[in-house]
Amino acid sequence: MRVGLTGCNLVGQSLSRNESQSFCAINPTNNKSLEPFFFIAGNEEIQGALEKATAAFPVLQEKSGSETGLLLRGIKNELELNAKIILMRYQLESGLAAERAQIEFNRTLLQIDQFIELAESSSWREPSIDTPQNRSLITPDLRKMNVGIGPVLVFGASNFPLAYSTAGTDSISALAAGCPVIVKAHPYHPGTSELVAQCIRNAIEMADFPDGTFSHLFDDGFSVAEKLVMDKRVKAVGFTGSQTGGRALFDLANSRPDPIPVFAEMGSTNPMVVFPDLLKEKTADWANAIAQSVTNGAGQFCTKPGLIFCLVSPETTPFIDALIRCVSEEKNMEMIHPNLRENYLRKVKLSCEKIKDRQVDVTFDNVESLVLTCSASQFIADPSLQSEVFGPFALVVLAESVVELNQCLESLEGQLTGSVLGSFSELGKNYETLQLIRSKVGRVILNGVPTGVTVCPSMHHGGPYPASTDSRFSSVGIDAIKRFVRPQSFQNWPNELLPPALRNDNPLNLNRRVDGNWSFAEIKP
Amino acid sequence: MRVGLTGCNLVGQSLSRNESQSFCAINPTNNKSLEPFFFIAGNEEIQGALEKATAAFPVLQEKSGSETGLLLRGIKNELELNAKIILMRYQLESGLAAERAQIEFNRTLLQIDQFIELAESSSWREPSIDTPQNRSLITPDLRKMNVGIGPVLVFGASNFPLAYSTAGTDSISALAAGCPVIVKAHPYHPGTSELVAQCIRNAIEMADFPDGTFSHLFDDGFSVAEKLVMDKRVKAVGFTGSQTGGRALFDLANSRPDPIPVFAEMGSTNPMVVFPDLLKEKTADWANAIAQSVTNGAGQFCTKPGLIFCLVSPETTPFIDALIRCVSEEKNMEMIHPNLRENYLRKVKLSCEKIKDRQVDVTFDNVESLVLTCSASQFIADPSLQSEVFGPFALVVLAESVVELNQCLESLEGQLTGSVLGSFSELGKNYETLQLIRSKVGRVILNGVPTGVTVCPSMHHGGPYPASTDSRFSSVGIDAIKRFVRPQSFQNWPNELLPPALRNDNPLNLNRRVDGNWSFAEIKP
Repeated sequence: MRVGLTGCNLVGQSLSRNESQSFCAINPTNNKSLEPFFFIAGNEEIQGALEKATAAFPVLQEKSGSETGLLLRGIKNELELNAKIILMRYQLESGLAAERAQIEFNRTLLQIDQFIELAESSSWREPSIDTPQNRSLITPDLRKMNVGIGPVLVFGASNFPLAYSTAGTDSISALAAGCPVIVKAHPYHPGTSELVAQCIRNAIEMADFPDGTFSHLFDDGFSVAEKLVMDKRVKAVGFTGSQTGGRALFDLANSRPDPIPVFAEMGSTNPMVVFPDLLKEKTADWANAIAQSVTNGAGQFCTKPGLIFCLVSPETTPFIDALIRCVSEEKNMEMIHPNLRENYLRKVKLSCEKIKDRQVDVTFDNVESLVLTCSASQFIADPSLQSEVFGPFALVVLAESVVELNQCLESLEGQLTGSVLGSFSELGKNYETLQLIRSKVGRVILNGVPTGVTVCPSMHHGGPYPASTDSRFSSVGIDAIKRFVRPQSFQNWPNELLPPALRNDNPLNLNRRVDGNWSFAEIKP
Repeated sequence: MRVGLTGCNLVGQSLSRNESQSFCAINPTNNKSLEPFFFIAGNEEIQGALEKATAAFPVLQEKSGSETGLLLRGIKNELELNAKIILMRYQLESGLAAERAQIEFNRTLLQIDQFIELAESSSWREPSIDTPQNRSLITPDLRKMNVGIGPVLVFGASNFPLAYSTAGTDSISALAAGCPVIVKAHPYHPGTSELVAQCIRNAIEMADFPDGTFSHLFDDGFSVAEKLVMDKRVKAVGFTGSQTGGRALFDLANSRPDPIPVFAEMGSTNPMVVFPDLLKEKTADWANAIAQSVTNGAGQFCTKPGLIFCLVSPETTPFIDALIRCVSEEKNMEMIHPNLRENYLRKVKLSCEKIKDRQVDVTFDNVESLVLTCSASQFIADPSLQSEVFGPFALVVLAESVVELNQCLESLEGQLTGSVLGSFSELGKNYETLQLIRSKVGRVILNGVPTGVTVCPSMHHGGPYPASTDSRFSSVGIDAIKRFVRPQSFQNWPNELLPPALRNDNPLNLNRRVDGNWSFAEIKP
């Protein structure tokens, strides 16, 4: 079904605009407001979404994998059907180019594909069965599988209007686990969000899923978020955004009488370590690759490399010069929102002031990409140089020795990624550096750049705090579902009453851990 | 090697008593102090334990599965070798009987056995490999496996001096994941804790594991705990105990600049629902079984059933009478510590006052087991009746109808377990009741009692708050290791530099998720 903008909230399947307060999206290329007005969700709408989600949850938990798969397929189909209007609005609201819009759109579909497969296979239930006879003690029949945690609150991300927002991995992984979703749309791209939300609404109707499977609420402030996070009926939160925002949600959820898990992915500076040997031959290639990684999409990626550690050596100077040259070729970049632009210019100015050994002109009206350099001792002395500058900026840190390099790495906070560039022999002999990087990050890249987060099961997108609030979970890939499921044990249940995943005859044909060994076999009662 | 009491802290492998402050254990059967004095850990000892744990962590992470298995085997051997002295001290400090001591000792060994197998198999690494050629987009080689989260702080539990304490599942699962452990001994059984700690120390020496793999600190207050939880070097916390204690640790850890996961298992009232049909034939048997579950070990189990919901019916009265009779046969019980006894008597008195429709004499000097009854409406009206009474006490709640019964269940907080007793037909037709129970608990038992937490992979010991701080994790069974591991992705790594679990030739013979399918096969480069 075709979708179109209304500015209304979606309280379950119902369009709703109870309050008079509203806001508009802004076209960041000209700072002008875009039609229509989006109506801020009022208390009645918030309560409605929560009530409906609560009522929908047990119904969703009883849906089979193929039924849930059908819902996700429906969402994908609706997105494809409405691609044109979504992509147009995406570009208007974000200022991002058509190519980027298309790439992100395809990525969103690819993510859904992977969760369709996951939902249809039911493998996320990770069934485990222990039969009495196999154990040394006299013990009952015990079976365990994952179930959905309950209604999940998802926050749209500013920098990914599609892939990390309304139908992004947070929402889709929650739905795959049979958890109803309430999305708080990101105010930077409410129109894109509404169009996607309507696609989900259409799919829910067609798949005959209950009212309350999905709700979509607007707010350009923090009040709706606060009410939702504090409500007893919300059982988990997914968020991608700033450290300040993520931490605020985390603190709020933990202040509840009944705290709930908040998975907040809060970005990082994604340190790169560059050893000299590698630079001997391909200086220009690597400088160019890193420059691309810094400036691509105006550096508005949570995996943009913001810190580049180099050992002082004859190879380093030409490399840094080449890097600065490549980066400086990118001028007058657009950022997704005027707020992001202001933040970027403010933070770059701050960095320039801190690093006094270089004179760099910062034009305060246009976003330009920039590389600064400082010494390792300066870096270690000033922890504020570690803080993320969201945008096309990187700081090169020059270390006199591997010892000093390792001291820099030791001082780092948790990160999403860490990259090390070096010849095979450099990588092999700098074992301690590799270990240090590993201790700080969720993903370690050798001889590559951190941007480009491949959507696949082996991707871990998360990391020690403050990269994310819980390093044990990923917000990309099918394992993202683990954030929204909890194991449940069934003791001494008659076979007929057990959920299908745990029945003797293994009707879902699942690989199950039976008495400690993985098996597709039936259980002999 | 033989172990013996010293009253000293273990800072890594070193015995230490820097401070003059000390405390004694109490024999709860006569309220008398037991020798020796245990010296409270001072700041130097706390810092020493943290420094050593931090230094040991990367070394432990490089240990192979068989090396880690050897350490755990050593711990088991040392415990067996020193069984006699440990069990004697256990009984002195806890007042628990020899039989219970032996059962818990065996349980502790059984747990270690399961983690030896887990460590040796390395299966907890859950390796995942995505090769470039299999994906539709041009993508890098990505591999993922679990790694240890870092030094883990473990708190001994008051009610399980062995199985949930110094060498309990928290410590053993952390060690299995290559995480150094710092145990804060429970002040109710410091001697048992020290003897077990020395067994671990011996095993570390024999297995040639680094100093700092394990430390053991004493405190009879909250100050050592607070310093440890707030220290940046501690990366996760395991706790079994009261809701107040667990929540305090949880709040503390979340107040850190870098919050860490706290897994606190905080007990529960473990509701049971008894449908009448089942009672028709075996009234006495069920009354007896439930009474045993309430009174066994003086009710000092986190899975003791504290709430029993019955439908008013001709079968109910004789059942409740039989239950009260069976329970009242247990008199003059010993509790593990005078504090627990006082708490029990205070809470029972409070319950008696709240439930005015029965006159029960509570002797305030002796611990006696007790069953009270109240109506469903009274129960719903007074949420304080839900709170756990730790000890041999249960409240029977009489519901006039299934609707009223379900209202009671709806009002419940999160629980470790829920049990439903009924004929096959009662269970089948009261689907909503089963669903309600499922939504509140971590483990659902049909026609059985909740005590007796079987140690096996399919056991989930945890549940929605306040049963535990995170319903997604278990503190029993091999999956307890998931609390202390985090996934890490390796992108574009040369095969030779990859950890063994992810290498092409699969040297650990692991079942790996390769391009989405589980396989033991080698990867063709």
